[in-house]
Amino acid sequence: MHSEGTTPRAEVRRKADRADYTRGTIDAILDAAPICHIGFVDSGAPVVIPTIHARVGDTLYVHGSPASRMLRHMKAGAEVCVTVTLLDGLVLARSAASSSMNYRSVVVFGTARLVVDPEEKMAALQALTEHVLPGRWDEVRPVTEKELKGTTVVAVAIDEASAKVRSGPPIDEEEDEDLPIWAGVIPLRLVPGAPVPDAASRRGIPAPQSVAGYRVEPESGS
Amino acid sequence: MHSEGTTPRAEVRRKADRADYTRGTIDAILDAAPICHIGFVDSGAPVVIPTIHARVGDTLYVHGSPASRMLRHMKAGAEVCVTVTLLDGLVLARSAASSSMNYRSVVVFGTARLVVDPEEKMAALQALTEHVLPGRWDEVRPVTEKELKGTTVVAVAIDEASAKVRSGPPIDEEEDEDLPIWAGVIPLRLVPGAPVPDAASRRGIPAPQSVAGYRVEPESGS
Repeated sequence: MHSEGTTPRAEVRRKADRADYTRGTIDAILDAAPICHIGFVDSGAPVVIPTIHARVGDTLYVHGSPASRMLRHMKAGAEVCVTVTLLDGLVLARSAASSSMNYRSVVVFGTARLVVDPEEKMAALQALTEHVLPGRWDEVRPVTEKELKGTTVVAVAIDEASAKVRSGPPIDEEEDEDLPIWAGVIPLRLVPGAPVPDAASRRGIPAPQSVAGYRVEPESGS
Repeated sequence: MHSEGTTPRAEVRRKADRADYTRGTIDAILDAAPICHIGFVDSGAPVVIPTIHARVGDTLYVHGSPASRMLRHMKAGAEVCVTVTLLDGLVLARSAASSSMNYRSVVVFGTARLVVDPEEKMAALQALTEHVLPGRWDEVRPVTEKELKGTTVVAVAIDEASAKVRSGPPIDEEEDEDLPIWAGVIPLRLVPGAPVPDAASRRGIPAPQSVAGYRVEPESGS
């Protein structure tokens, strides 16, 4: 499945049957992944840093302190690669070579753009807060002018991207299929534990529904 | 905490109080993370790809098809950045700006080395199989000569690395502490579901203890 937006570097080469270039698939994976890994080049060498991302339409946003090495590179218009991966299971074949993982991943290539417009910046902060916990934006104390100025927000357009998805059982070599070895999948899922209120909240503020009812993926993607 | 092995680029700049350069911490996080994200530079631009890793002593190994773009770069001696991240919780403060994540991450910088010695290669494949599921190496059909030759294995020395860890409750601005807003942590954990046997295994091969008793992190790191 190729879409108009795909470029050679965003093309999946290995296991191309697992590739998906449709924006619906790409967006669903970007939205479901709690964090991303951002790659940039510093003095000729690659650097990969985990951070929170959020999607608004055709744009990915990340934020942080102006002192962050990653954001200093990004706001200067660096080329970046934003990758998200959701691990869905261990795929246990009868041979090590045929064993694998079930996963959903997206790779986005792009040039970072510093967000200067205060309205776009505020919308990005809202999206980032809501990406972590839907409903949280309306619960927290509003962002101050000082916080808005003190936060760097950068954007990456989602126009050069690909998804790669593996699901289902192991595929053994034909001659291995009858070996008396257990084969199958151990599904994996990121699940929330019971919320732990901080000291002040323990003195009587109940957890809102956003917290009490939180699930990492409300509708499972696997 | 600085150890001998740290170099300027491996030094944590932001939130330096969360940094840890001790090998015990670094190794424990590398071992606990099911997958890593590898960054390399292709035609001047960064690329970040998720893959399985395994640690043997002071060396990280990754493997795959000789046709993989990542492995073609790595076996040519590319500089790489290997990053692993374990997400331990959503940290919900009373303001968006003070909200955060609890996590354990490690960043390793190094030059990839193609593994050619068949013994080191076999030991790496064993470590990779055992990293995914402890005990699996002795259960699967042994690796053939053809598979060994047909798999590319590359190594990265763990001598330029840092860990970054955040744990515990949110830290609000002092003036926000008495706001009537719930604050606290939602712990997150990657949890296995019930193993799903493939068609042949359903016909009577019981799941071994490695599978039936699997936990992603046998002793929780958070």
